[in-house]
Amino acid sequence: MKNFGLSELLLVDPPDLDPDGEAYGFAGHAREDVLPNAREVEFDHLVENYHTVGCTAITNDDHRRHVRYPFRTPAELADSLAGVSAGTCVVFGRERVGLTNGELERLDEVCSIPASADYPVLNLGQAATVVLYELRELTVEETQLPETIERAPERDVEGLHDQFSTLLDALGVEGTQRRRTERLWRRLLGRAHPTTREASTLRGILRRAEEGLRHGLPGEREG
Amino acid sequence: MKNFGLSELLLVDPPDLDPDGEAYGFAGHAREDVLPNAREVEFDHLVENYHTVGCTAITNDDHRRHVRYPFRTPAELADSLAGVSAGTCVVFGRERVGLTNGELERLDEVCSIPASADYPVLNLGQAATVVLYELRELTVEETQLPETIERAPERDVEGLHDQFSTLLDALGVEGTQRRRTERLWRRLLGRAHPTTREASTLRGILRRAEEGLRHGLPGEREG
Repeated sequence: MKNFGLSELLLVDPPDLDPDGEAYGFAGHAREDVLPNAREVEFDHLVENYHTVGCTAITNDDHRRHVRYPFRTPAELADSLAGVSAGTCVVFGRERVGLTNGELERLDEVCSIPASADYPVLNLGQAATVVLYELRELTVEETQLPETIERAPERDVEGLHDQFSTLLDALGVEGTQRRRTERLWRRLLGRAHPTTREASTLRGILRRAEEGLRHGLPGEREG
Repeated sequence: MKNFGLSELLLVDPPDLDPDGEAYGFAGHAREDVLPNAREVEFDHLVENYHTVGCTAITNDDHRRHVRYPFRTPAELADSLAGVSAGTCVVFGRERVGLTNGELERLDEVCSIPASADYPVLNLGQAATVVLYELRELTVEETQLPETIERAPERDVEGLHDQFSTLLDALGVEGTQRRRTERLWRRLLGRAHPTTREASTLRGILRRAEEGLRHGLPGEREG
C-alpha cells in the first residue's frame, strides 16, 4: 500500500495485530503508519460507504452466473476508476479462500488478475501488490523515477551517425556495402535511443578510431 | 513465478533451502517444482549465458551517472523483450540491499518499478510479482480468464434502449426532458457495457413496469 501511495487500511474480522508479530515484521515502513492506523470495520460498512471492488482469482466463464462476471482486469480497473469521483474501496479476501460468492454479490465490481491458467491463485500480498501497482496513476502523486528518459537531442544522434560514416570513409567502405552498413548502424542506434552522454562518448571513440586510421595513433605520430 | 508461467529459478549464493523452512512455506504450489528444481549458479554464469535485466528501485536522476541509467519500467521491458529472441534472465537482488552498482554494470538492461517517491523500495517478493506480472504476455500461454467479456450484441442493447423509451412513453415524459432522459440513459448504459443477460433482464423489468403502468399489474388486473 505505502509503495503505491495508499494509506487507509480497513480490516474486517482480522486476527490480532501484534506489533511484535508477523504482519508488522513484513510491513517495512508501513509499520510506522498504515498498520497502526488500520481501522476495524464491519463488511456492511464497506458496502454502505464506498464504491467497492472485489478481487478474486476465479471468475466465471460466461454471463450465465453473474456473481463473478463480468470482471475487469487491474489495468481496466485503473482506466475505469480514473473517471470516477467516489470513495473507492478495493476489497481483498482471506489468504486461503478469498471472497465468498455471498460477499462478492454485495460488491459493485469484480477485478481479476490475469495469471497462468494452471495456477492462477496468487498469495494475498502479491494480489494486492499487482492491483495497487496498476492503480498507481490514481494514487501516487510522484514516483521515484525521472519523468522521461533523457534521450540525446536528434542533432547529437545525427552527429554520431555522421561520425560513423566518416569512419567508414577512413576504412574505405563504399558502394552497396557502405549503404547497408550505414542503414544497419542507424537502425541499431535507433532502437537503443542513446542518451546525450552515450552519443557523445561513442562519437568520441569513433573519431579517435577514424583519426587513428588517417593519421596514426598519437603514440605512433610522436614516434 | 508459477503464477505467471515461469519455471526456471537460478540462485546466486543462496541461503540453505530447507523444505520445512520459510521459503517453502510461502511458495504455494511452487514448492512442488520451482523450488526443488532451482539451480545454484555463479553471477558470472548469468552474465555469460543470458540477456540480463537487473531490477532496482533506485535509478539515477539523470544521464551523468551511468550505472543505473537509462532504465525501463516493467511495462516497457515487456514491450522491448517481445521483439527479442534470446534466453533472458531477470535478475533480482538481495532483500535488503538489492543489486550493487558493481553487479548492475555487468547486466545488459536495468528495470525499475514506478512507485511512491516517498517509499519506492518494494519487498523482493513484491518486486518480482510486479515484474513477472508485466511480462505475462511473453510467458503465460493461457490465463484463467475468458478471452473477452461477452458484451451483449448491439441489437440487444438497442432493444433495451427502445424499451426504456417505451417506458418513458407510458410515464408521459415528453419534449426536452424526454430527450435529455434518453440521452442520459444511453450514456450510462454505454459506459457499463451490459452483457446479454444484463440487457435482457433489465429489458424485462422495464417491460413489466411499462405494461403495469398501461394495464395495471397482474395482481390488479385479476382483482
